[in-house]
Amino acid sequence: MLKNISNLQATLEKLLTTQQGMNAEGQVADYIPALASVSPNLMGVSVATIDGNVIGAGDYQVPFSIQSISKVFGLVMAMNRIGDELWQRVNMEPSGQPFNSIIQLEWEQGIPRNPFINAGALLVADVLTSHFSTSKLAFLTFMRSLAGDEHIYIDNNVYQSELAHGNRNAALAYLMKSFSNIQAEIPEVLSHYFTQCSVAMSCQQLAKSLLFLANKGLDPISQHNICTARDAHRVNAILSTSGMYDQSGEFAFSVGLPAKSGVGGGVIAIVPGYGVICAWSPPLNTFGNSVVGTNLVSGLAAELGLSIYH
Amino acid sequence: MLKNISNLQATLEKLLTTQQGMNAEGQVADYIPALASVSPNLMGVSVATIDGNVIGAGDYQVPFSIQSISKVFGLVMAMNRIGDELWQRVNMEPSGQPFNSIIQLEWEQGIPRNPFINAGALLVADVLTSHFSTSKLAFLTFMRSLAGDEHIYIDNNVYQSELAHGNRNAALAYLMKSFSNIQAEIPEVLSHYFTQCSVAMSCQQLAKSLLFLANKGLDPISQHNICTARDAHRVNAILSTSGMYDQSGEFAFSVGLPAKSGVGGGVIAIVPGYGVICAWSPPLNTFGNSVVGTNLVSGLAAELGLSIYH
Amino acid sequence: MLKNISNLQATLEKLLTTQQGMNAEGQVADYIPALASVSPNLMGVSVATIDGNVIGAGDYQVPFSIQSISKVFGLVMAMNRIGDELWQRVNMEPSGQPFNSIIQLEWEQGIPRNPFINAGALLVADVLTSHFSTSKLAFLTFMRSLAGDEHIYIDNNVYQSELAHGNRNAALAYLMKSFSNIQAEIPEVLSHYFTQCSVAMSCQQLAKSLLFLANKGLDPISQHNICTARDAHRVNAILSTSGMYDQSGEFAFSVGLPAKSGVGGGVIAIVPGYGVICAWSPPLNTFGNSVVGTNLVSGLAAELGLSIYH
Amino acid sequence: MLKNISNLQATLEKLLTTQQGMNAEGQVADYIPALASVSPNLMGVSVATIDGNVIGAGDYQVPFSIQSISKVFGLVMAMNRIGDELWQRVNMEPSGQPFNSIIQLEWEQGIPRNPFINAGALLVADVLTSHFSTSKLAFLTFMRSLAGDEHIYIDNNVYQSELAHGNRNAALAYLMKSFSNIQAEIPEVLSHYFTQCSVAMSCQQLAKSLLFLANKGLDPISQHNICTARDAHRVNAILSTSGMYDQSGEFAFSVGLPAKSGVGGGVIAIVPGYGVICAWSPPLNTFGNSVVGTNLVSGLAAELGLSIYH
Repeated sequence: MLKNISNLQATLEKLLTTQQGMNAEGQVADYIPALASVSPNLMGVSVATIDGNVIGAGDYQVPFSIQSISKVFGLVMAMNRIGDELWQRVNMEPSGQPFNSIIQLEWEQGIPRNPFINAGALLVADVLTSHFSTSKLAFLTFMRSLAGDEHIYIDNNVYQSELAHGNRNAALAYLMKSFSNIQAEIPEVLSHYFTQCSVAMSCQQLAKSLLFLANKGLDPISQHNICTARDAHRVNAILSTSGMYDQSGEFAFSVGLPAKSGVGGGVIAIVPGYGVICAWSPPLNTFGNSVVGTNLVSGLAAELGLSIYH
Repeated sequence: MLKNISNLQATLEKLLTTQQGMNAEGQVADYIPALASVSPNLMGVSVATIDGNVIGAGDYQVPFSIQSISKVFGLVMAMNRIGDELWQRVNMEPSGQPFNSIIQLEWEQGIPRNPFINAGALLVADVLTSHFSTSKLAFLTFMRSLAGDEHIYIDNNVYQSELAHGNRNAALAYLMKSFSNIQAEIPEVLSHYFTQCSVAMSCQQLAKSLLFLANKGLDPISQHNICTARDAHRVNAILSTSGMYDQSGEFAFSVGLPAKSGVGGGVIAIVPGYGVICAWSPPLNTFGNSVVGTNLVSGLAAELGLSIYH
Repeated sequence: MLKNISNLQATLEKLLTTQQGMNAEGQVADYIPALASVSPNLMGVSVATIDGNVIGAGDYQVPFSIQSISKVFGLVMAMNRIGDELWQRVNMEPSGQPFNSIIQLEWEQGIPRNPFINAGALLVADVLTSHFSTSKLAFLTFMRSLAGDEHIYIDNNVYQSELAHGNRNAALAYLMKSFSNIQAEIPEVLSHYFTQCSVAMSCQQLAKSLLFLANKGLDPISQHNICTARDAHRVNAILSTSGMYDQSGEFAFSVGLPAKSGVGGGVIAIVPGYGVICAWSPPLNTFGNSVVGTNLVSGLAAELGLSIYH
Repeated sequence: MLKNISNLQATLEKLLTTQQGMNAEGQVADYIPALASVSPNLMGVSVATIDGNVIGAGDYQVPFSIQSISKVFGLVMAMNRIGDELWQRVNMEPSGQPFNSIIQLEWEQGIPRNPFINAGALLVADVLTSHFSTSKLAFLTFMRSLAGDEHIYIDNNVYQSELAHGNRNAALAYLMKSFSNIQAEIPEVLSHYFTQCSVAMSCQQLAKSLLFLANKGLDPISQHNICTARDAHRVNAILSTSGMYDQSGEFAFSVGLPAKSGVGGGVIAIVPGYGVICAWSPPLNTFGNSVVGTNLVSGLAAELGLSIYH
């Protein structure tokens, strides 16, 4: 792995250089206006290590919409709150379907395949809504605490846009409710879910916030136990099989790290025992993963030999 | 990880003891008579390490039908033979469906989701049938060479049984042929595939044979390069997302090793940089994975802290 | 066909006798409490002819929840209101799926297969909600006018029960909205839909109300043109292929009349050029069709040689 | 209905005139070379009535490949041979899927939805293969007898072409065999099936051959009972819900006759109590139905008021 942090800084900058222009191969998410208006030319990458280094290159301090990366944090909160009861209501199998398919949910009688497809994340949002009196505030507080930054905020423009285009997620939630697998009122669940997705954070903040997953549940900066070692293992496992939508298998095959992407263009990757990588560039490939973000993580993993599959 | 090989021997024996009677929770595969007649009480476990140790406990030297574990070896042979062309014809995504479902194959226009579902393994069998003049002999020779044992054999009783119950596999193969994704004649492809599945090997032989996957493609015993480091990585990645049928996600979640099971009751698990575990016990759970075999691998991984997700 | 109306009365009474006890083979719908509480022993049958006779036997004057039979009337109102534009938004093909499956809707990109599956009926409800200022009142007025009875009412107990168990229908509606195939607000669409379903009518009233479908669109009693001859033809065609849920093919095969059932236990059948049969008995078979209701229509069709397939 | 046979002749000729050039809107079937080579400009129509008239216009005496129209005759033979036992092995529900989809067959555990989708026709072919010592000859003899023409033949060029492109049908057959719903050897079943499809007949011959379905099972020419009145009813019912592939609902909606099409460009329609229409023109629409053939049947049904739905 990595020997020298100043070499790493140089590596990040070199990698960024190779990606100039590659963003043209993707498309910025346009299903909501608030995302469509982000510049396709922004790109950044950050690495945080469990021994305390946090570096970055490019636009690594610019906040962006974390979108589905929020599913990782929501999952950790729900695991902490209700324990193994969660796994009676959501499975941990890869989905083998495009990320928001309603078909599989019907087949499996309202039990989502895993917490990283939309249905599963809505289930998690239901757990949070039902078990916290002010779940949105609790989520934001959790994010601020992990990142060590009280300025982390919810982008209200994105939130309103999500709400206005949330019919498919509403369909998923009502379908689960018809199988008695949602407890709260659907509008509340959706409101929590879209709030999560609308949090704005930078590469640097995300990389720092997820160090506990690379460190058996312990945040090496605050020395707080964010979750158990067993749960950190479990989250990494699900990230490995299901974190990159229907490209998860290919990402494991060619990169080999637990990772999660969001349609805001962010990609995070956990390197167990070492640290966290976060890359960002808005244009997405056909699977909904950032073209340049994926390339940056992939390039760094190859350069440093980070794969968990050797 | 493991410090001391004599401790490991004691650990294997202790683990076996904990599993006495647990085999009653599964059912021996009965879709073919030749498998249904195997004693449900046999159980064994073996560990081979890349530094040369091979130990075991219980019935670890008794040969059994390797069945779908053969898919790993067939895949390596096909990757070696045709290179990346293979990935034009088979995908590397988890399937999210029971292992032999024909529905997904139809949806994806004759391209199997991955090489470890039956459709994918038949595709691999087609590659071998088409590219080797005597593919069955080539496969057997490969297995004998990897295990360092010229006595490895094909169980003809199992082979005939498979042939007589091969209608679903024939359906999968003809469907792929209708999408022009099979080149050889179907009866030849099926004959090769059932031959592979009918190879009989012991836990000890399987563990030794797969060391190259834990060692970047290099067999540490023979010092032969069995495949490239990149391909060893890739096989481990697909094993991690798709090796345990529709329980692959749960296995990653709770155990955390690249692994493959077969309906003969065998389970192999790769520990990159360390070695290979192979456990065997014929009774299967509802997913088609050996109850005791899975428990043995799981127990050993927990005991020794082997998970790749930490 | 039928020669003599007093013979027909005797036939109806004889048929009812043969069905005593047969209701024990079905189950009263229990997905909502308001339906579960109806007596399973009520049964009735009525025939209305286009030459003006209306007769019946058993509980043929007892009102019951018309449920999905309301889909026929809603469809006629929507056809009258927006004409062929309707067929851009809903198809007219048999569904080949259980009646409320969401899978097909996803496959066909938000276009329901036909107006008699729930998704299609919700689409029709959206048309009515969007095109009438007070669609619920308009529906009730239409029903009262067709039956010639100002006392026809909405069973508020049923309506509230439906609303409280409407999650699956909400899922279907939101899914269609996500494909931009719903224009009104979902709660309004559901409210209209459940209102329709909650209308209470007797066999006699339903038989009279549908005479226009047996008479090329003209109500022979009021002499009003309820719809065009072409639309009467079309409704009868869809009833023939899709009116009896996933038993529609078998009903055509063994009975041979355009028909529609509802989970309240009602069944209506159109005999083009002759009249309408309506039978009622709450216990349902596994397809959701009234056991005795189906038997009564079937028996009468056989007795009188009414099948359109000869 | 029709009053005067010389008027009918004029009507047929007028209808043909309206269709000149309309064939350009379709595509001749090209999945096998033997069909692709047929001239797209041939078109003909014939009407046979139960009172003995047989007339036609255009190329109504030119033999063409009857393809799936053969499914009607095969079904009648199988019903006659094994009676209601047939309906344990094939259903009579519309399919709601493209005609050769393997998905539904998997869902319904090897029981085809109806005898007119390919899986169902292969099931029927299995019945014939298993219950006749020389089923192909028996089929040909049946066809010659119905048409009253010993010269009816099997087009060997088409047959060989079908065999060479039969992989999807083989997949369907093997899948059913895996569910124990096929008794004979698959190559024999396929050989029978492709033989049936390869029979060449003219519009005139087909119209005459099917008169028994319009006449309660009795062939009005030979005065032979070809099947029971009940079975004629049943065949007409299945034709009405499932005879025109995934356009069956629309055909009922707009035309309203039991009908069957084949990819050779033929369309037959039964008019119960009156006669049979057969039209032919090779170019097909996207559903696999003859563009002009469908138009001719539709035009005639409208002109003469033949619909069974009034």
